[in-house]
Amino acid sequence: MIAPAQIQRDNALSPAQNLWALCEDDMAAVDALIVKRMHSPVGMIPDLAQHLVGAGGKRLRPLLTVATAQLCGYTTAHGGTAHHKLAAAVEFIHSATLLHDDVVDESNLRRGKKPANLIWGNSASILVGDFLFARAFNLMVETGSMEALGILSNAASVIAEGEVRQLASLRNIAMTEAEYMSVIEAKTAALFAAATEVSPVIADQDAEKRAALRDYGMKLGLAFQLIDDALDYDGQQSALGKSLGDDFREGKMTLPVIRALGKATDAETAFWRKVIVDREQDDLDLQRAISILKRTEALEETIQMARRFSVEAIEAMDVFEASPLRDCLQNLAAYVVSRAS
Amino acid sequence: MIAPAQIQRDNALSPAQNLWALCEDDMAAVDALIVKRMHSPVGMIPDLAQHLVGAGGKRLRPLLTVATAQLCGYTTAHGGTAHHKLAAAVEFIHSATLLHDDVVDESNLRRGKKPANLIWGNSASILVGDFLFARAFNLMVETGSMEALGILSNAASVIAEGEVRQLASLRNIAMTEAEYMSVIEAKTAALFAAATEVSPVIADQDAEKRAALRDYGMKLGLAFQLIDDALDYDGQQSALGKSLGDDFREGKMTLPVIRALGKATDAETAFWRKVIVDREQDDLDLQRAISILKRTEALEETIQMARRFSVEAIEAMDVFEASPLRDCLQNLAAYVVSRAS
Repeated sequence: MIAPAQIQRDNALSPAQNLWALCEDDMAAVDALIVKRMHSPVGMIPDLAQHLVGAGGKRLRPLLTVATAQLCGYTTAHGGTAHHKLAAAVEFIHSATLLHDDVVDESNLRRGKKPANLIWGNSASILVGDFLFARAFNLMVETGSMEALGILSNAASVIAEGEVRQLASLRNIAMTEAEYMSVIEAKTAALFAAATEVSPVIADQDAEKRAALRDYGMKLGLAFQLIDDALDYDGQQSALGKSLGDDFREGKMTLPVIRALGKATDAETAFWRKVIVDREQDDLDLQRAISILKRTEALEETIQMARRFSVEAIEAMDVFEASPLRDCLQNLAAYVVSRAS
Repeated sequence: MIAPAQIQRDNALSPAQNLWALCEDDMAAVDALIVKRMHSPVGMIPDLAQHLVGAGGKRLRPLLTVATAQLCGYTTAHGGTAHHKLAAAVEFIHSATLLHDDVVDESNLRRGKKPANLIWGNSASILVGDFLFARAFNLMVETGSMEALGILSNAASVIAEGEVRQLASLRNIAMTEAEYMSVIEAKTAALFAAATEVSPVIADQDAEKRAALRDYGMKLGLAFQLIDDALDYDGQQSALGKSLGDDFREGKMTLPVIRALGKATDAETAFWRKVIVDREQDDLDLQRAISILKRTEALEETIQMARRFSVEAIEAMDVFEASPLRDCLQNLAAYVVSRAS
């Protein structure tokens, strides 16, 4: 979360910060709603939820919902608070997924902090994830928009399907690029797409704008995940908020590895088999993986693909008239891929 | 699941079987819908879901939904299939909860079979649970009833809250009877209440019938859980579908233990502290626990309380005119407590 004071002090704002500044009142309302709705008399729930949701998150997805709602002319002045409720619901769905992912992935760093399951235990993370997921639906019901509910509940089942597909492909070096794309479309891009598609729906915009915003969210999500997968091998831990090489240690198949395997020498194939399939890894193996990924240009190709999706996201927004808000959403799409340059 | 052939062969049908017979076509439609909607191209999902949902379950909750829908005059002839969709959604929510419970409880028997997490792993159980939960909401959205969605999404967050509360009270011998009642109301009775309350809602019945059916489901659920908790110490493993003494081994606080603690000698208090708080248990401790529970009449008192809730469930149905269906629902409430006599 970016504190307003920090925004004002900083002269060179990122597009995410600019977008936040344009939606400051909405995001304050969303924050208040998040805090209020993760409350429960069962103390472990707000404690654990606060650890994950309360701090450290970028709130990128809810920011996308309120920004696109504003772009579609749906504002608080317009009379409703559905955009705030849907934004909070989107963040709750995302947070529930993260809590369950931490248990599944056995991560040891999340948003720069110790994951909740390592503090409260796996059981608490599973159950509080379920609680946040249910609360997301409570919020959606309150908006009264069955169409928005349909979009987000569909995204929720697609996300779960993508997570299971990823689990089933763990340590499988035969995973194809098409399978990988369908995993990241499901587990990441579907929620971005839903977060932006609900806005034209509650603002009663036409099908063209709805398709454009869905497309924008989907492409932005794909670019975002591709960069994340590249940064796992080529980032700064501080920028990532998670440990470098997490995917590698879990034997997770991502595009860099798939591309490198396509160009691998026999020795390199044997190497990938050892570290991914057998998960036999010593201290030097991550460095060796990184140098193979660089030599085969697998990281560069991953970033290139992210750039193409970023361009498509920017183009999708052309159906909207130029405005500071539209420009900012387009800049954001360029910005997510700049993390890797 | 009770096969129709079995129903015909058996002369002395249980009330659950009689109810099934009265709703046979509806339950066949619900079964087909369950199988269809747990399908996914990601093979691990139907495999795992089939293991749990496909067989062995009593389908008690969806049976309650279709039976009460019929009682309220909502049938397929009435034009809609919302009762089937809601019944399948109720079963999916219940199944998602069971999948997550298996991971949380570390059970080794579920519906008389090996739990899914011991076959496919904890991660798969968590993620397929999430998938079924999301699919439940997809089904609800399709009914178009925002009111039914509100009832079931509220139940979902109450259930999760109850599960966390139970987790937080594990191995806490200071747990009060009031805390225990709020746990079982949330984790079990809330879904029974929602399963029966949605029926008058989709059938456009008045508030009195809605309140009566909610009350019936709630009291039936409370009776059901109290008997389950008594049977953990005093049942046949085959009747239970889970291992005898599971609650005891997990250090779960249930009414029998709470009541026994209220009358415990110093030596007995020390015993409960050792087995529940410290979880130091040897082979004879379950037998010792059972004999204390019998001597203090804690099991008998638990069953008595279940009987009172059963009577209240039966009385709640008095607002409906007598009919084979109503009688059957009332008999069912008497039947759930008869499991323990």
